[in-house]
Amino acid sequence: MNSVRNILSDLEELSRLNFDTYGKDFLLNYEKSDDDIKAVILCATILRTLFRNNISTRVFDTGLAISQFKDKSTRTRFSFASAANLLGLTHIEFDESKTQVAHGETIRETSNMISFLAEVIGIRDDMFIGKGHTYMLEVGKALDEGFQTGVLNIRPPIINLQCDIDHPTQTLSDLMYIRSKCNYELDNLAGKKIAVSWAYSPSYGKPLSVPQGLITLLTRFGMDVVLAYPEGYDLLPETIEIAKKNAEKSKGSFKIVHSMEEAFKDADFVYPKSWAPFEVMKKRTELYEKNDQKALNELEKECLQINKKYINWTCDEKKMKLTKNGNAWYMHCLPADISGVNCENGEVSAEIFEKYRIETYFEARYKPYVIASMILLARVRDPISILDHLYRKNNRRIGIIF
Amino acid sequence: MNSVRNILSDLEELSRLNFDTYGKDFLLNYEKSDDDIKAVILCATILRTLFRNNISTRVFDTGLAISQFKDKSTRTRFSFASAANLLGLTHIEFDESKTQVAHGETIRETSNMISFLAEVIGIRDDMFIGKGHTYMLEVGKALDEGFQTGVLNIRPPIINLQCDIDHPTQTLSDLMYIRSKCNYELDNLAGKKIAVSWAYSPSYGKPLSVPQGLITLLTRFGMDVVLAYPEGYDLLPETIEIAKKNAEKSKGSFKIVHSMEEAFKDADFVYPKSWAPFEVMKKRTELYEKNDQKALNELEKECLQINKKYINWTCDEKKMKLTKNGNAWYMHCLPADISGVNCENGEVSAEIFEKYRIETYFEARYKPYVIASMILLARVRDPISILDHLYRKNNRRIGIIF
Amino acid sequence: MNSVRNILSDLEELSRLNFDTYGKDFLLNYEKSDDDIKAVILCATILRTLFRNNISTRVFDTGLAISQFKDKSTRTRFSFASAANLLGLTHIEFDESKTQVAHGETIRETSNMISFLAEVIGIRDDMFIGKGHTYMLEVGKALDEGFQTGVLNIRPPIINLQCDIDHPTQTLSDLMYIRSKCNYELDNLAGKKIAVSWAYSPSYGKPLSVPQGLITLLTRFGMDVVLAYPEGYDLLPETIEIAKKNAEKSKGSFKIVHSMEEAFKDADFVYPKSWAPFEVMKKRTELYEKNDQKALNELEKECLQINKKYINWTCDEKKMKLTKNGNAWYMHCLPADISGVNCENGEVSAEIFEKYRIETYFEARYKPYVIASMILLARVRDPISILDHLYRKNNRRIGIIF
Repeated sequence: MNSVRNILSDLEELSRLNFDTYGKDFLLNYEKSDDDIKAVILCATILRTLFRNNISTRVFDTGLAISQFKDKSTRTRFSFASAANLLGLTHIEFDESKTQVAHGETIRETSNMISFLAEVIGIRDDMFIGKGHTYMLEVGKALDEGFQTGVLNIRPPIINLQCDIDHPTQTLSDLMYIRSKCNYELDNLAGKKIAVSWAYSPSYGKPLSVPQGLITLLTRFGMDVVLAYPEGYDLLPETIEIAKKNAEKSKGSFKIVHSMEEAFKDADFVYPKSWAPFEVMKKRTELYEKNDQKALNELEKECLQINKKYINWTCDEKKMKLTKNGNAWYMHCLPADISGVNCENGEVSAEIFEKYRIETYFEARYKPYVIASMILLARVRDPISILDHLYRKNNRRIGIIF
Repeated sequence: MNSVRNILSDLEELSRLNFDTYGKDFLLNYEKSDDDIKAVILCATILRTLFRNNISTRVFDTGLAISQFKDKSTRTRFSFASAANLLGLTHIEFDESKTQVAHGETIRETSNMISFLAEVIGIRDDMFIGKGHTYMLEVGKALDEGFQTGVLNIRPPIINLQCDIDHPTQTLSDLMYIRSKCNYELDNLAGKKIAVSWAYSPSYGKPLSVPQGLITLLTRFGMDVVLAYPEGYDLLPETIEIAKKNAEKSKGSFKIVHSMEEAFKDADFVYPKSWAPFEVMKKRTELYEKNDQKALNELEKECLQINKKYINWTCDEKKMKLTKNGNAWYMHCLPADISGVNCENGEVSAEIFEKYRIETYFEARYKPYVIASMILLARVRDPISILDHLYRKNNRRIGIIF
Repeated sequence: MNSVRNILSDLEELSRLNFDTYGKDFLLNYEKSDDDIKAVILCATILRTLFRNNISTRVFDTGLAISQFKDKSTRTRFSFASAANLLGLTHIEFDESKTQVAHGETIRETSNMISFLAEVIGIRDDMFIGKGHTYMLEVGKALDEGFQTGVLNIRPPIINLQCDIDHPTQTLSDLMYIRSKCNYELDNLAGKKIAVSWAYSPSYGKPLSVPQGLITLLTRFGMDVVLAYPEGYDLLPETIEIAKKNAEKSKGSFKIVHSMEEAFKDADFVYPKSWAPFEVMKKRTELYEKNDQKALNELEKECLQINKKYINWTCDEKKMKLTKNGNAWYMHCLPADISGVNCENGEVSAEIFEKYRIETYFEARYKPYVIASMILLARVRDPISILDHLYRKNNRRIGIIF
């Protein structure tokens, strides 16, 4: 087991960090310190190593991990359930309020009613600009009140499983993947170029959280982050500001261009992905609140029409040739819209996708460990000694008989 | 940990009781002895203390806790799932027979088919008068047969999660809350007055199980129970008879009045809650069986019309002033219909509800422990030694690594 | 505990077998060796004995057991969930692709995305001839690729929970039941006669997997297997060939007749069950693929009409009198179509079904152990030492406190 050394060195590295995650929600990466982010990555790495060596990572004897998905989800649902299981928690889904404008009293009351024995709450609410993050804050406030008044024994931390602003469990998995291509050292990311590029998709209304999350996260590590999109497909302005500041601080760079080709040039990584323009998403939320179905349909039609103008914003062999040695790593959060496979014209050509298909699976597989790491860091006071104890005890995960 | 003394004294108190709960269903509180009821409360209290001190209460290494909800439920579903998890059981929902008139063969067969590894079955069937309790008895009979013939290794006890007659997990939580306001001694309930009062709601067909459960339960402890409702909003006659007998035996009192004000006068506790009149619910069941949708719609319309005559049956500041020192504890099983919040006119004013909002959360939080207590008392022969063992072993629930 | 001897002798018997189940899918019984089949039966028996003696069979500390049901299921769902729980796994359902013609890319990708921490995947896909088994192979191929490329840490074995060809968890439960009537020795099956007979049902399109599974399985053990059906109600031709070969090898016999009476004559066991003709099922699949709803409706109508000609193919007292001493064991996979109970005319008369009702429950109750056995044999390298360890450790399943 040559990964033994890695666990010990990872634990040592973790112990040198000054992270502050106990009892904290994990809503937006950009609110977290560099050391918080690094701690999540390291702890996820250690949990993964333990798992791969058939060492049990059961830290909870009982306890519930509650998830609430306001949008349909299979992958993140399984990742959350897997993470819960990895630590010994039981996953339970809360699916009452599928209405997206649940009024205040319900959120306050229900948040407490379901949380009497909750250890963690994961929420996905990514459909409407200005809504998802706000909803999570509201649930958090309700849980604060419940804990402070003694209704709840524990203040279950909230983990953002995708909101209108960020998608931290995805982008931290992406970061772990990028790190794996940089000899597993975050320090090696400095100077590497990534193109976060809009790409054509025949669908409408895809969330902005992934590109926003990528530009605000990757600029922290000295990367040269180029954001590319056709004019009009802007992201949330705040995230642009944060990306700029982060790049300045980390001595990386951040640039916006309106050409996929320019972005791809000499890139080490490319992340071509569709999203809806921020202004359209805002308008959509307004129309939705007014329940103006007719205007909503028209907005959709109009957008798909505009989209079509950028049908050549697709990741194909020709564009990949522009990247560093024609050999950049193609990334995607999946599922991708693949030309000729699940749509006529999409984000990526069938050839390129097939070439990197298994790589995109590698990218995805970190998510359960990232979520488990977030839960552990938020729920135990001394994660280092717990992880060390798990490692030394060496209880077999399969074949356990005490 | 000053709760250590409490666990030991609670265990001692439990050992002095003569309860008979092993292998028994928990369908109706009023069929249970006083000591059975006290044992549920004490065992729930001990489980809660253990939980709050991070001591694992895992008693089952494997096993299924099956729930069947014929009516939608979030809160009780989470309470049942929480209780199962607390003891180490895995919750699984059975949702096949959403039809409420499932015929005999199906109940017999299915009850056995799902129970090969079941440790407990929780059922909610509260929609139709004469149906819910009957259904639970039928499932029980099927399980009896399965166990007696050797099909089932265990006869899983049934826990009533609300039927047409009673709602024991709710009213025992209510009882634990009342006890908490009486210095945590059931003996101190004697002489305290509670107003169980009908209240106006703009909805129709609310179950009778909560008021019926309250008057039959609280009269056992020497309380002065006043049931108040507008003429016509009667409860199931048998429950009235039981309440009377219990009051006589416990030297408390039971009285029916037709004025909310009279009920509230000098009350220590008030429980204003809407319900449908027993006769209407009976008629509704008949029409439902005939599948007479037109008559059902008319019945609903008619009832809502009658309801409106009693719009002033609401719990507001003026009525609360009538209570003992103007300071009674407001109780509700939640969710409440709150005037100006989730309806125009409801069971309670926004001011009163807000004043007692956190208190209603306290009232609700006992339910997972009540259910876990019922499971434990029905499934282990010597709950006292098990609880004692859990306490002495002191396995950490979080951070457990053997 | 007189079953102690049995566990030890069962373990000894298991150790004499030359089974090859580790890391293997369990898709079709007829692809498995006799020793594989015997190992499943023995291991299931041991797990059941341990369970009945309150000895924990928790082998996994964490891990997911994923199920995917393309057809509605309560019983098999509960059996799978029970089996998972018995071993310490957490059951999670995957229900995305309810479309039965999911295209390749989705299967490949999704199979990996949900499996990062999967220990086993159970699939039911029995609706369309030529589809179910093919789908399972496709999932298996996707998992192979995931494991070989390092995406998955484990290659989760697939367990067939019913496909278009076979229903191994059902027929192995049936086999355990038959064995129980032969003094619990598989050797005693030789020379016993079973009638696997088509029976009338007012419904249409019932799968062929059970009769196909029965004739291919039971012919291995020297039984005299008689398959009876009205002309036209053929099974998949390959399964007929396999049954013939098996019978020859085992010195049993296999015969097709077109008379229920002839099949029942002197039978020790009868298994009267409806199914749709193979050719009709094939046509149905074709029409379904063309989405020709009109032709599908006509096909159904036509078939029900033909069915009616065989309304006398029912298992009643008169036919049972023809069996060995008029006393054969009636078998069914449940639920049965019972004349005068859940249909006017069905597979079995009310009298016969009632006489054997509890026996059919006995038949069904083996399924959770069969599934748990398949999981264990596929997931641990040395199941014998694990089972031996479980037995010697003697951890109580209920009342466990380390």
